[in-house]
Amino acid sequence: MSPVFLIVSAPGKAILHGEHAVVHGKVALAVSVNLRTYLRLQPSSSGILRLHLPNIEVFASWDVSTLLPLRLPRAADPRDLNKLDLALFQRLHDFTGFTDEAPDTHSMAVLAFLYIYLSIFAESRELPAFTVTVCSELPTGAGLGSSAAFSVCLSAAMLSVQGAISLPPVHPESTARWRKEELELINIWAFQGERVIHGTPSGVDNAVGTWGGILRYCAGNITPLSRVPMLRILLTNTKIPRSTKLLVAGVRDKIKKFPSIMAPVLDSIDGISITCEQTLQEMANDATPEHYSVLEELMDINQHHLNVVGVGHASLDHLCRVTLARGLHSKLTGAGGGGCGITLLRPDTDSLVLQSVTRELRDCGYDCWETSIGVPGVQLHSASSVKGDVLSVLNSY
Amino acid sequence: MSPVFLIVSAPGKAILHGEHAVVHGKVALAVSVNLRTYLRLQPSSSGILRLHLPNIEVFASWDVSTLLPLRLPRAADPRDLNKLDLALFQRLHDFTGFTDEAPDTHSMAVLAFLYIYLSIFAESRELPAFTVTVCSELPTGAGLGSSAAFSVCLSAAMLSVQGAISLPPVHPESTARWRKEELELINIWAFQGERVIHGTPSGVDNAVGTWGGILRYCAGNITPLSRVPMLRILLTNTKIPRSTKLLVAGVRDKIKKFPSIMAPVLDSIDGISITCEQTLQEMANDATPEHYSVLEELMDINQHHLNVVGVGHASLDHLCRVTLARGLHSKLTGAGGGGCGITLLRPDTDSLVLQSVTRELRDCGYDCWETSIGVPGVQLHSASSVKGDVLSVLNSY
Repeated sequence: MSPVFLIVSAPGKAILHGEHAVVHGKVALAVSVNLRTYLRLQPSSSGILRLHLPNIEVFASWDVSTLLPLRLPRAADPRDLNKLDLALFQRLHDFTGFTDEAPDTHSMAVLAFLYIYLSIFAESRELPAFTVTVCSELPTGAGLGSSAAFSVCLSAAMLSVQGAISLPPVHPESTARWRKEELELINIWAFQGERVIHGTPSGVDNAVGTWGGILRYCAGNITPLSRVPMLRILLTNTKIPRSTKLLVAGVRDKIKKFPSIMAPVLDSIDGISITCEQTLQEMANDATPEHYSVLEELMDINQHHLNVVGVGHASLDHLCRVTLARGLHSKLTGAGGGGCGITLLRPDTDSLVLQSVTRELRDCGYDCWETSIGVPGVQLHSASSVKGDVLSVLNSY
Repeated sequence: MSPVFLIVSAPGKAILHGEHAVVHGKVALAVSVNLRTYLRLQPSSSGILRLHLPNIEVFASWDVSTLLPLRLPRAADPRDLNKLDLALFQRLHDFTGFTDEAPDTHSMAVLAFLYIYLSIFAESRELPAFTVTVCSELPTGAGLGSSAAFSVCLSAAMLSVQGAISLPPVHPESTARWRKEELELINIWAFQGERVIHGTPSGVDNAVGTWGGILRYCAGNITPLSRVPMLRILLTNTKIPRSTKLLVAGVRDKIKKFPSIMAPVLDSIDGISITCEQTLQEMANDATPEHYSVLEELMDINQHHLNVVGVGHASLDHLCRVTLARGLHSKLTGAGGGGCGITLLRPDTDSLVLQSVTRELRDCGYDCWETSIGVPGVQLHSASSVKGDVLSVLNSY
């Protein structure tokens, strides 16, 4: 095992349909979003392990010799990956001095990094030294899976260095993907990273970051759809802060208050997810304008339903109105109550329309990204395949 | 039988919940609206029957001797009231010269008047002469049951003159109602008037005009709720014209296109109607602010559902936004696609709030009325119980 230079990336995630309803046993569709987190791993001969996260201003380094004792007296059993190694987790807290209470993004990122590092290299003769630099196109805390994309990149990079997975050949200006069994291993370790950061994550975010494409999520089962189209979207972050926990509790209260009214709404959302899944699979073969019309109708209907279950917000209504005025259909994505919305774009959506919509939304203080959903999951990059601005950030550290 | 001077009135109707869903076997709640149609009947010694409908500019008169042959060779059997007497209907068309095709409001009103007159007096020795003047607060063609209120008034007035029902004693500045069995007879004949005007009406509008209050309507069964509160509303007519037939067909198409999504929405609307019914019956005993909150929530939810089934309209969305900005909750009522909306007012809704909302809505070109729902059905008036402006119209002819 000797570290090699590598760049990996993983996509963000959005919920296309089924947010909130999934908590009540209904189908949700999670999609990869082509706002990616890039990780560069560079071997170091200095015996220093470095973590550079310029997005969130984390610049940490450790002499690997100080880390060695942390994996003693016994390494986490890598086969027992259904839960965290709490002993390691506690030792990392003690080592870093981070407290358990109200952990911040910085601490969580560092803990996840060290946890994955010490776990994956638990049985290695010596701990490798390298510099990890991460540059992400994803905003944090917006429900777009930024922590999962980070964990997936960490997992893929360190498993590659450790030799647990291969380094697929990657041509100049190109990217490469791992084999299915390798992706499964990446996903398992990324899930551990998510557990460090979130406690009891659903596993959907890391699965999307790993597999990409579109995943069906229902009653704890996560299944990648076999063939899916890539779709253009406008992703908008209203930047209205909200508490997912309070929103989920609010939905539960509303179901309890009006069971005969709300239970059918959840059933209808289930129908939307299933109809959308069928439509997307048809579109993978041959996408027609009628397919896009169906996707638009489903978004409009679900946006109404999400308002009905009580997770709408004036900022999201405004997003829907602004886009609809230009013939574009939107819905909230994720927890709602603010946060993000997605707007479906057709292959022939005029760039002037898009520019004017984006301008209007930015004037409201929203962030907007024109991007795609259904894109590949974690991948290995040739340096020349990475966008210039991302590469220049990665190369600055 | 000799005609006496009398003034009767009947309320308009609105759908509180369940419009469109009722077509698919779900519960709807129809409510009386205190925009009333007033009818004055004045005996005449001239042998002339007169009909004055100043709202729609109908001023017709007939020598009763010319009408006598129309009820020959055989009067309609008054016990057979489940359908129109088509022979009489045809004779009336021939007599008036109105064509069957594209009948206008004027012709329909005259036909309904003559049909009810000739049927109710079918077995009388001679046809009575009187002047009927009608003044209505209801707009026509807005889905507010104006034709039913007209038919109910005609039925009540003529049955009173004929002696089939009593003339309840009415004190000065007061009104009086008929007994249950008499109301049933009024409703039966009003339904005949509705058949003349609409072909195959549901019978809900004339039932609301007759019974007042709130009616539960499901699968063809119409049941007045036993105890209901009277509620303040703002009624808004967007004046956007629409075709009920096309809207109903559109909903049917949408159910067919997305059965797994739309069937639960209809179930949820059913739940709304039933929850609303329970809430209203609780309010009849003791209306609390919490009850009003529930009614408001139900209106918001149903407005979303009506958008989902495809009968929303930008004008109705605008109504909802304008009222919500002042804390008031609205939904469309009736067919949708424009037409009317209702806004619930609380007992303590500030008159300044109401004024400013009304001003803003009128600035959009909408008509607005502050009125009540759940008000009494057909009633007999002392002249002094009739509002001055209505009385002055009635007395002008």
